Amino acid sequence: MSKYVYSFGNGTADGEGKMKDILGGKGANLAEMSRAGVPVPPGFTIACQVCNLYFEAGNRVPEEITEQMYEALGILEGRIGKRLGDADNPLLVSVRSGAKFSMPGMMDTILNLGLNDKSVKAVAKLTGDERFAYDCYRRFIQMFSGVVLEIAKDEFEHIIEGRKKKVRVKLDTQLSAADWQAVIEEYKKLVKKHSGREFPQDCKQQLEMARDAVFRSWNNDRAIYYRNMNKIPHDLGTAVNVQAMVFGNMGETSATGVGFTRNPATGENKFYGEFLVNAQGEDVVAGIRTPRPIEELGKVMPEVYQQLRDITAMLEKHYRDIQDFEFTVEKNKLWMLQTRNGKRTGPAAVRIAVEMVHEGLINKKEAVMRVEPAQLDQLLHPMLDGKALKSLTKLGKGLPASPGAAVGRIVFTADHAVEQSKKAPVVLVRKETVPDDIHGMEVAKGILTSRGGMTSHAAVVARGMGTPCVAGAESISVEERSQTISVVVDGKKVTLKEGDWLSLDGSTGDIYAGQAHTLEPDPTSGVLAEFMSWADAFRGKFGVRANADIPRDAKQARKFGAEGIGLCRTEHMFFGEDRLPHVQAMILADDEKGRRKALQKLLPMQRADFAGLFKAMDGFPVVIRTLDPPLHEFVPKREDLMVDIAKLPHADVKTKKDMAARYRMTVGELKKGLPELLKRVEQLHEFNPMLGHRGCRLGITYPEITEMQARAIFEAVAQVAKKGVKVIPEVMIPLIGGVEELQNQKSIVKKVADEVLGKAGMQDQEYMIGTMIEIPRAALTADRVAAEAEFFSFGTNDLTQTTMGLSRDDYASFSKDYQEKKIFKADPFAVLDQEGVGKLVKYGVENGRATRPDLEIGICGEHGGEPSSVEFCFRVGMNYVSCSPYRVPIARLAAAQAAISDKSEVARTA
Amino acid sequence: MSKYVYSFGNGTADGEGKMKDILGGKGANLAEMSRAGVPVPPGFTIACQVCNLYFEAGNRVPEEITEQMYEALGILEGRIGKRLGDADNPLLVSVRSGAKFSMPGMMDTILNLGLNDKSVKAVAKLTGDERFAYDCYRRFIQMFSGVVLEIAKDEFEHIIEGRKKKVRVKLDTQLSAADWQAVIEEYKKLVKKHSGREFPQDCKQQLEMARDAVFRSWNNDRAIYYRNMNKIPHDLGTAVNVQAMVFGNMGETSATGVGFTRNPATGENKFYGEFLVNAQGEDVVAGIRTPRPIEELGKVMPEVYQQLRDITAMLEKHYRDIQDFEFTVEKNKLWMLQTRNGKRTGPAAVRIAVEMVHEGLINKKEAVMRVEPAQLDQLLHPMLDGKALKSLTKLGKGLPASPGAAVGRIVFTADHAVEQSKKAPVVLVRKETVPDDIHGMEVAKGILTSRGGMTSHAAVVARGMGTPCVAGAESISVEERSQTISVVVDGKKVTLKEGDWLSLDGSTGDIYAGQAHTLEPDPTSGVLAEFMSWADAFRGKFGVRANADIPRDAKQARKFGAEGIGLCRTEHMFFGEDRLPHVQAMILADDEKGRRKALQKLLPMQRADFAGLFKAMDGFPVVIRTLDPPLHEFVPKREDLMVDIAKLPHADVKTKKDMAARYRMTVGELKKGLPELLKRVEQLHEFNPMLGHRGCRLGITYPEITEMQARAIFEAVAQVAKKGVKVIPEVMIPLIGGVEELQNQKSIVKKVADEVLGKAGMQDQEYMIGTMIEIPRAALTADRVAAEAEFFSFGTNDLTQTTMGLSRDDYASFSKDYQEKKIFKADPFAVLDQEGVGKLVKYGVENGRATRPDLEIGICGEHGGEPSSVEFCFRVGMNYVSCSPYRVPIARLAAAQAAISDKSEVARTA
Repeated sequence: MSKYVYSFGNGTADGEGKMKDILGGKGANLAEMSRAGVPVPPGFTIACQVCNLYFEAGNRVPEEITEQMYEALGILEGRIGKRLGDADNPLLVSVRSGAKFSMPGMMDTILNLGLNDKSVKAVAKLTGDERFAYDCYRRFIQMFSGVVLEIAKDEFEHIIEGRKKKVRVKLDTQLSAADWQAVIEEYKKLVKKHSGREFPQDCKQQLEMARDAVFRSWNNDRAIYYRNMNKIPHDLGTAVNVQAMVFGNMGETSATGVGFTRNPATGENKFYGEFLVNAQGEDVVAGIRTPRPIEELGKVMPEVYQQLRDITAMLEKHYRDIQDFEFTVEKNKLWMLQTRNGKRTGPAAVRIAVEMVHEGLINKKEAVMRVEPAQLDQLLHPMLDGKALKSLTKLGKGLPASPGAAVGRIVFTADHAVEQSKKAPVVLVRKETVPDDIHGMEVAKGILTSRGGMTSHAAVVARGMGTPCVAGAESISVEERSQTISVVVDGKKVTLKEGDWLSLDGSTGDIYAGQAHTLEPDPTSGVLAEFMSWADAFRGKFGVRANADIPRDAKQARKFGAEGIGLCRTEHMFFGEDRLPHVQAMILADDEKGRRKALQKLLPMQRADFAGLFKAMDGFPVVIRTLDPPLHEFVPKREDLMVDIAKLPHADVKTKKDMAARYRMTVGELKKGLPELLKRVEQLHEFNPMLGHRGCRLGITYPEITEMQARAIFEAVAQVAKKGVKVIPEVMIPLIGGVEELQNQKSIVKKVADEVLGKAGMQDQEYMIGTMIEIPRAALTADRVAAEAEFFSFGTNDLTQTTMGLSRDDYASFSKDYQEKKIFKADPFAVLDQEGVGKLVKYGVENGRATRPDLEIGICGEHGGEPSSVEFCFRVGMNYVSCSPYRVPIARLAAAQAAISDKSEVARTA
Repeated sequence: MSKYVYSFGNGTADGEGKMKDILGGKGANLAEMSRAGVPVPPGFTIACQVCNLYFEAGNRVPEEITEQMYEALGILEGRIGKRLGDADNPLLVSVRSGAKFSMPGMMDTILNLGLNDKSVKAVAKLTGDERFAYDCYRRFIQMFSGVVLEIAKDEFEHIIEGRKKKVRVKLDTQLSAADWQAVIEEYKKLVKKHSGREFPQDCKQQLEMARDAVFRSWNNDRAIYYRNMNKIPHDLGTAVNVQAMVFGNMGETSATGVGFTRNPATGENKFYGEFLVNAQGEDVVAGIRTPRPIEELGKVMPEVYQQLRDITAMLEKHYRDIQDFEFTVEKNKLWMLQTRNGKRTGPAAVRIAVEMVHEGLINKKEAVMRVEPAQLDQLLHPMLDGKALKSLTKLGKGLPASPGAAVGRIVFTADHAVEQSKKAPVVLVRKETVPDDIHGMEVAKGILTSRGGMTSHAAVVARGMGTPCVAGAESISVEERSQTISVVVDGKKVTLKEGDWLSLDGSTGDIYAGQAHTLEPDPTSGVLAEFMSWADAFRGKFGVRANADIPRDAKQARKFGAEGIGLCRTEHMFFGEDRLPHVQAMILADDEKGRRKALQKLLPMQRADFAGLFKAMDGFPVVIRTLDPPLHEFVPKREDLMVDIAKLPHADVKTKKDMAARYRMTVGELKKGLPELLKRVEQLHEFNPMLGHRGCRLGITYPEITEMQARAIFEAVAQVAKKGVKVIPEVMIPLIGGVEELQNQKSIVKKVADEVLGKAGMQDQEYMIGTMIEIPRAALTADRVAAEAEFFSFGTNDLTQTTMGLSRDDYASFSKDYQEKKIFKADPFAVLDQEGVGKLVKYGVENGRATRPDLEIGICGEHGGEPSSVEFCFRVGMNYVSCSPYRVPIARLAAAQAAISDKSEVARTA
């Protein structure tokens, strides 16, 4: 007879770690740990092959194997010093499935097997806790009946509810030992009614029945479905693991606790954890008793503590990562219940990775793979000081739209923000922001909106600026007219007005009334800098640029390691307070002459902006996009005008003055001026601005705009280059659908460029003219587009909108339904939809390169800073990603990981 | 020495029609005509090979070939009885290029060669028209100098301008013979200045120089570019055709004229044309002298007339199509200058095609290929009676948005349209229409809008209904408040008010004040019916369905030959006067219960609608699309509400009453009701409705809507099927981006369908659930979508909008620039963009069929009725197209032509 049952425990094991085919994953791991000297509760594993034999024999385990099992049970009883079904010192066991490949939650488990009417009394006596013992017993009956006898769970729950009603309590925890005893009696009746026989008191019978049920669960519907999904063969079978249960509540020499081998919050290499004497595992986390710091275990049980330190240190070495462990001490004997790689904060992840390299535990490649790119976010922004928050009123939670902490006085308009920010830090609070608000957003320490999602205007712009933002805080009512916000907290209405202090956590979405204390992180700290230098080495030639519109952001981006600007949105400059009047004059002009006059005023301002960017990016490329948004974004809102016109006849002097100021008219001009303005605004009105007259379409209709922008760019090039700065300009035409549009705009830019550079005697200055690929048709015709384009930059924000037919601004209204019903795997505006949008991107890259093999290709959508999307961009062969300055380190790390994975991929397939 | 020069004329020729390699296309054709006995002016062709010899010899024609040329010139002179350079009876010739493949306008031509200071006097004498002779001479100098001597044209123009200034006239036609003589003197000076020698008076020298220049023009930049574009080999060379010029202005025995072998307007088989005695060709078309009907030529020159009849009859037989010809009689000798297949109207095209089959001239396949599908439009709508129009005031012209004539009294609102249409026919006049106007559009005879393009709401809906529509008539000012339209006609303002008569021609865009007389065409006329039956035979299994929402349109569609409904838009039913209140109640409901209550009211109405459609389509499939538009289309406009709220505090009683009626509130409710309504409307407001909460997204958020619609559909199926009607329902889910959305909605529809049919004992009733492919992502993931979809219908309206990132409603504002700058080849909403959108369609078809080989695939966008798009749909393997009922015959014909072309393609490559 072959060996089918494998014992483990007491520092030894019949099997070993590599025997997963026989022992399953869990069984092999237990054998491994036991052999390594880790004091796991003893037990035995019934091999996977028995599962097949069970089914082959018509749902019966061959007699000889059952004999092997009882042999192993005997060994187990010897090792733990308890006996199954013993009336004084009973052994309780868990019976668990464990296949070669993990199938979490698919198969069945039974705990506390070995309890019966007699042994329960022994447990009560040993733990001194009668209520505990009977609660365990009723749980066992319930679990056993469900798994083995297939009695529905709700019938048992029904009995408990009945009991609670009878004794007039609400919670399970309020039931006494006597109550549980009564419940058990009713459970037994239920079992008899359903199965036609008594609940088995014979513990060996319990064990055989439980084992067989676990084997049967290999072929339940869930498990079969799961294996089909994950392509796991159906003939592997599951092992059955029988393991002694241990108790930390057997008096003052027993204890239970949890811990980490290092500090999971800071990464500090210091043993960390908590424990309770005479307690069960749940007590540590339940919060009824306050657990004690793990160091004190050294005083209470010095030997056990030392053993725990030795074992966990060994485990960390073994698994080469921080360990998160659970342990129980039963009568001075330490048992390790679980150990796994520990979850950790961003700062901790970086510190642990770097220190483990220094300790020689892992290599640099492993270190770089150990930190989730998104975790870096926590290292790059100020944080609210948690300790100081308790004195503040928490107003609620919105979406964590742009990370970091912000503390400031409330303002409700962009103009007030500019004004008030001179006196104190401000937080701009709006229902939603619009491009008009830019100047206010720039000066605000933080932004709070009650509408809009993670990719609303406020969120996108704030992330770009690195300004903390909480968006879509729907529970907070923003009354822009009365200049207040109100929210109900614990049934009480709280109202704040302009000037009141507000604190936001853009990393969590938390909102507090009052002035919080913040902690400034050090983004250039030694550990982080060291870590990033390793990442960059693996990243190689794949570039990371930043989206930045103004010199301040460009400098910030350089600090975060950006290797150029991947997107400068020139319209940002158009919204400046000193520019908007000229922009509006241009829009409202009757003819080209009028437009040119206004553009002439904008030219020196744009030139200065570009010069600043070029200086900040000395030696690195700067991609400048020509004007993109529809012109109506620069003029007053149509509906506001309509309302003001309706109100004007009855308006009082103050209202009229306000209106006049808003529209830059005199009071006398309003009557004629407003309808005239409305007429032009009506002409500009669009049903679907996203798909309207914008991008290159503006430049095609108004070539003079493109011309002015090209002039500003190349005059800035000439000006800055003469000062010895190395300028690498790349002019990008937005929103093309085909090569014809690019040709049109390129010829305008090229003409101006050659004229300006020629005049400056800089014929050798290199520059590129390329295009944004953000419309499906542009990707679909990439082969022709690349004949004209010297570079591509995928604008995946708009490409996602058009490819999915989904407006980013409007998606919020039904995103909840789409998440709940699992229509989308992730928010497609945060994580690139590789199946759909990605297919177009790939097609565009391949066909663009087919025409022009050295075509420079990047991405400048929000996705450029999202790790899985960065990995995608790397994989399809882009040259770089571009993202918000604050996400540059994240992208650098994601790219490094992509490069490492790619190489191992290559290595594996080679 | 090989033969390089080929003579033709006098009913004979050295070459023949198939010698295009040698003679080029034009030369071969002239040889063919001459051999066929057509009296073409005699001449000769210098072979294409000479062109290569010319370049090989360093831009020289070998001496022997020039000798051959003079030999041919001698023959020509003999045939025409004139001599080159003769002082009394000079021969003038044209010198033209003519390659194997047509390269229109790429190479050079010289006319009137042979004129010099002496021969010009002879021409003056012979024609009795001195001015004519000198005008010819100066034109010849100009043309020769441009082509041969490469002197820029504007220098010559400058001389003419100087002359006009001098003699104080404005037009060239005002210059006298003496003026032209003076101009010629200056021309000669110019030539000398530029070329360093006199303008050649030796006509043989003229001929050789012209010949060489034509050879050189084979390698000019334009020609090389054109050959590269069209993949024409560069080594073919061009032939040179030298042909005698003839003159119809040589006295009373000379004449000139144009004609058709049949009537090009009606198709009647009757000789048709006009002529002038003693005139040049231009005189016939210039309108200075009134030409005479061609029959009169029979009286003036009976023999010539008979010869012309015989020749043109022969030409018609030869080319097997109606001929459009030009002729000149020089001194009683008839010369045919040109003949080509004649342009004709739609009715003529059909009649000619059918009659030529009956005459045995062509076969049915050829007949079907002879009619342009779009031409059928003219046969399917009433037309304005041109004769009666003269008494009306033409107000202007808009876009011909939906063909046909409409005459009615003006109404400005949909409600008035319904009311007034009971008394008299009405024409609905709006700035632009909205879905709310549907009930008015339904009853109107015609629709006029001052805004919007060919694919505006008004245009699309009107075409769908077959209602004539003129859209975007920008010169007409529609004052909806004062209920008038005004327009300036010949400097005078014309104002019309409600109730005034208006006549529209939707086929031309013409707008008239007053009541025009209309002509009703007979869409089932014998000729058309016969023609369509042939087309259908060639079309085979490829189907044509109609887009129809109501039983009336469905019946119309059947009359036009539709084989099912390809798209029923259920929202059309939601806009009905009796339904809208329930729809609004549903939208404004606070919870699912409230929505279900309102939906319950809509259920019987929808069921009745569907039942009507099924009856009309007995035995044919009916595709019903679930609700598509965003909900805010069904509620009052946000900006209207805002304005009304602003006005309310100061409104008088009448205004308040109006408001109350509009919002279905009492006057007392307004104050509270309007802001409440606005709040909900604000919630529904979207930035880009096209990409917003619509289509399947509505059904996912509000499954109860899909459920109600499914119930209405299948209850109608059960109801109608029991009466013996064969029902083939296909339920279509709109706007999916991936299979997940389809799965969600399909499961709802399927559940209801199976329940309803089960209850009715109709488990065997077949039905399909499929989806619209109108979002790029759906096409890109078609393989997965097809796993769930039983059919695809490409919604190319929205697919064009998303693939091109272009809003149909907003495109109008810059479409002019895009047309002028040739960015788009055609309006992408009228003609499917095969390069971009078509690529996605093809991908979707191929990948859908890869998963489900028998997948039914159709198209239901506007493109389904556009011939080139129909051809595309056929080519990519769709099963059918669906279009407006009135375009069904067009689609049937286009499909037939596609099938014929496809088969010949197959035959050719086989």
